[in-house]
Amino acid sequence: MQDITAGRRRGRGGGAARRAAQGATTVETARTITRAIPDFEVLTEEALEIIEWNAETVLEEVGVNFVNNPGALQRWRDAGADVTGERVRLPRGLARKLISTAPGQFVQHARNPEKSVSIGGRDLVLAPVYGPPFVRDLEGGRRYATLDDFRNFVKLGHMSPWLQHSGGTVCEPTDVPVNKRHLEMIRAHATLTDKPFMGAVTEPSRAQDSVEMCEVIFGRDFVSENCVLTSLININSPLTFDDTMMGALEVYAAAGQACIISPFIVGGAMAPVSVAGTLTQVLAETMAGVAYSQLIRPGAPVIMGAFVTSIDMNSGAPTFGTPEASQITYGAGQLARRLGLPYRSAGSFCGSKLPDAQAAYETANTLNTGLLAGVNFMLHACGWLEGGLVASYEKFVMDADQLGFLHRMAAGVSVDEAAQAMDAIREVGPGGHYLGCAHTQAHFKSAFWRSDVLDYKPFETWAEEGGRDTATLAAARARRLLDSYTPPTLDPAVGEALDAYVAQKRESMPDAFA
Amino acid sequence: MQDITAGRRRGRGGGAARRAAQGATTVETARTITRAIPDFEVLTEEALEIIEWNAETVLEEVGVNFVNNPGALQRWRDAGADVTGERVRLPRGLARKLISTAPGQFVQHARNPEKSVSIGGRDLVLAPVYGPPFVRDLEGGRRYATLDDFRNFVKLGHMSPWLQHSGGTVCEPTDVPVNKRHLEMIRAHATLTDKPFMGAVTEPSRAQDSVEMCEVIFGRDFVSENCVLTSLININSPLTFDDTMMGALEVYAAAGQACIISPFIVGGAMAPVSVAGTLTQVLAETMAGVAYSQLIRPGAPVIMGAFVTSIDMNSGAPTFGTPEASQITYGAGQLARRLGLPYRSAGSFCGSKLPDAQAAYETANTLNTGLLAGVNFMLHACGWLEGGLVASYEKFVMDADQLGFLHRMAAGVSVDEAAQAMDAIREVGPGGHYLGCAHTQAHFKSAFWRSDVLDYKPFETWAEEGGRDTATLAAARARRLLDSYTPPTLDPAVGEALDAYVAQKRESMPDAFA
Repeated sequence: MQDITAGRRRGRGGGAARRAAQGATTVETARTITRAIPDFEVLTEEALEIIEWNAETVLEEVGVNFVNNPGALQRWRDAGADVTGERVRLPRGLARKLISTAPGQFVQHARNPEKSVSIGGRDLVLAPVYGPPFVRDLEGGRRYATLDDFRNFVKLGHMSPWLQHSGGTVCEPTDVPVNKRHLEMIRAHATLTDKPFMGAVTEPSRAQDSVEMCEVIFGRDFVSENCVLTSLININSPLTFDDTMMGALEVYAAAGQACIISPFIVGGAMAPVSVAGTLTQVLAETMAGVAYSQLIRPGAPVIMGAFVTSIDMNSGAPTFGTPEASQITYGAGQLARRLGLPYRSAGSFCGSKLPDAQAAYETANTLNTGLLAGVNFMLHACGWLEGGLVASYEKFVMDADQLGFLHRMAAGVSVDEAAQAMDAIREVGPGGHYLGCAHTQAHFKSAFWRSDVLDYKPFETWAEEGGRDTATLAAARARRLLDSYTPPTLDPAVGEALDAYVAQKRESMPDAFA
Repeated sequence: MQDITAGRRRGRGGGAARRAAQGATTVETARTITRAIPDFEVLTEEALEIIEWNAETVLEEVGVNFVNNPGALQRWRDAGADVTGERVRLPRGLARKLISTAPGQFVQHARNPEKSVSIGGRDLVLAPVYGPPFVRDLEGGRRYATLDDFRNFVKLGHMSPWLQHSGGTVCEPTDVPVNKRHLEMIRAHATLTDKPFMGAVTEPSRAQDSVEMCEVIFGRDFVSENCVLTSLININSPLTFDDTMMGALEVYAAAGQACIISPFIVGGAMAPVSVAGTLTQVLAETMAGVAYSQLIRPGAPVIMGAFVTSIDMNSGAPTFGTPEASQITYGAGQLARRLGLPYRSAGSFCGSKLPDAQAAYETANTLNTGLLAGVNFMLHACGWLEGGLVASYEKFVMDADQLGFLHRMAAGVSVDEAAQAMDAIREVGPGGHYLGCAHTQAHFKSAFWRSDVLDYKPFETWAEEGGRDTATLAAARARRLLDSYTPPTLDPAVGEALDAYVAQKRESMPDAFA
């Protein structure tokens, strides 16, 4: 992946590549995870064929609505769909044919070329939580998120060795007017880290601003020829594509920028109360959405998304880390691979109000599933709490640490001569121990993954140090990280141009708070 | 499985079967989990062949020690091994040949035939934590375990719908003399639950007592022809078989009772500091142990065990829920299947001192791995804390709840007509919702797994109720369960005979406390 990126940069990057190279810092980030392990598949071939057949039946018989979007309806008509009012019905095979122009894998460039990521194929990119209006920490409790919080989460993401992506709305900066948040969010991502990031989707004009800010950062030519943004386009399930999200998609696809096209489904409310039925709807919706992206610009990079979870039928609350959510995540991965599309799903999902055992069970169930389901882009990979309403400082740090587990698992098992360790077994023999043997001395430093958060101390030491639980240890680590943060280098001219763009845009609009 | 059991009982059980049938209670326990999902395999065919070749090389060149056991050395000599002192070297192929008589699947009978379990093949049996000298709960903190604690954990296990097995030393009843604990432990398992259980392994004579107590419960004829005990035989890694454990194995195998033959390995200390090297040693050790069981009695039921975890090279502490521990668990499952043996591994492992987020991350990583690794018998499936030193009331309840996740995942994904839900999708259409549709009304009660412990309430309700964390909720559930416990019915004659056996045995020995 590094080579692809470097090659493209050399060929086309020009000034942007030079500027980006100057942004290199000493923060070590693990590269894109390329899985050396197989995918886990819960659906049989027969089940896959049934779901695929049914999804096309849904597109053909039931159809999808494109709301307040005459341009979209005309595009569909021109492509051969049956359009009645806002309802678009796709003859069997049409969506699949349109999807065939979408790339199976693409590179999203970071301003530091060392941190560009490959999305698709056997690769996995991890990005932090997206969208919470609240934050929580042990000291301040639960409160509305601010721009300071936003900047803190970008800094924590920058310092994580396991996150390769800075994400998007890591929390809502509620102290900034709604119509100007995207400017501050992108400025934060572009300056406080040199990892890749996401664009705004709450208005087509804000998507346009996102692209323009990238032109300031990367250079206009570079942006016109390369993907520098991956943005999140939610489908309004069931089977509805609203004009706001589609407007943003149209901007990004036309600009050759990537979108995740993703249902947001609580099964039983926005989809049938069954795994196979939900997967059918997910497939129909994403096929229609991805096909539409290719009507805007054939070849536009897209990711098939599936944010799908189960519901507690007693309370109506969404539930996370459940077996049905895992089954859907595995199944949607199989469906995405059969379409040849990069796949987004999973994350640090939980319903818990606190970064406690419930949060960790639910999150670990989901992270393990995401890894083995063949997810290529994992949004929300750390920091999610309370059904996504809250970004938690402690959980961000705890989850980000667990992402190291995914990196190591994905690397697979080596059986080279050193790993076989036959000399060690011969040296130690029955009844001995391996702590001091030559093989252990040579390999112990890198042999086993080590948490930076969890407690491995003897009981007595742990008790003497206050008997702290995981959240308390994580709070201390979050403080240490933020205290030691240093920004990656940035070409001052780019910083100034970005500030000027934001100032000019902010002045051009009255503040809006809803 | 139920049919097999019932059939055997009808054919051979006689009085024991009638007595056992009377023990039926109203506590609902899910049956053996039969996986309708594939196994996840991290090792390639090439890696498997290297490890298998190397394991045989270890057996042939390095060998294993059978300590203080002249009888075992003679058996090995007679079988064709090269014996020098206590070292036994097995010519390539010998262990594999001996192992071929071990059954790939067997039934362990419970005194309630409805609760007998199938071990091996595609089945998964879950049993609680084994061995902790300490217990912990929110009220009493960390303290030495007593017989009252032991009885409480057996009751909690009995009431779990997801545990199919009552386990063995759910905690050490440290207030009972060491040489009499096994009598009290088996009496508790035999009377407080009607699920299957494990026998003593701390002395050959205690193994013999365990078999005799089962003869009281099931009848001598039944025990002579059926497996009613599964017991845990640890290998003293590296490559050492001590006389205590082997003595117990000899008793059980001769009686046709099942043993788990299992290395207990902290990688880097008792095995090489690499996944492939550790797997090589695990395979060599379990092959030697299983082969030895077949020298005692060809056809004796055995389970290939792998209790293997990683080490923190900074502190020397064992670490749990790590990627390397998962890789070993997956890999050992592949090796066990290629030997045609039932496989024991995984559990609610964690290093945390508290039932907090660390405990849950580490446990969930391990439970997910165990399910997909094809484990057939999962000891320690709930209640484990602090590296196994502590049995936690709260964590027992929390983990046991999560085992429902495994049951549902294992069932796979249905694509029958109801699951396809096409009528629901047609009924609701774009922009509607599924909460009230006919399909949802018909299926919502059983559609999604629901936790009995975790919090799904709205934030405000949760906050009004005290903002309780998972451990606090679990403590309340543990109290409620113990308060509402009722014992399964037991033939009074069996109860009296068991009491008489225990009384006679206790009187026959002076107390020993070490």
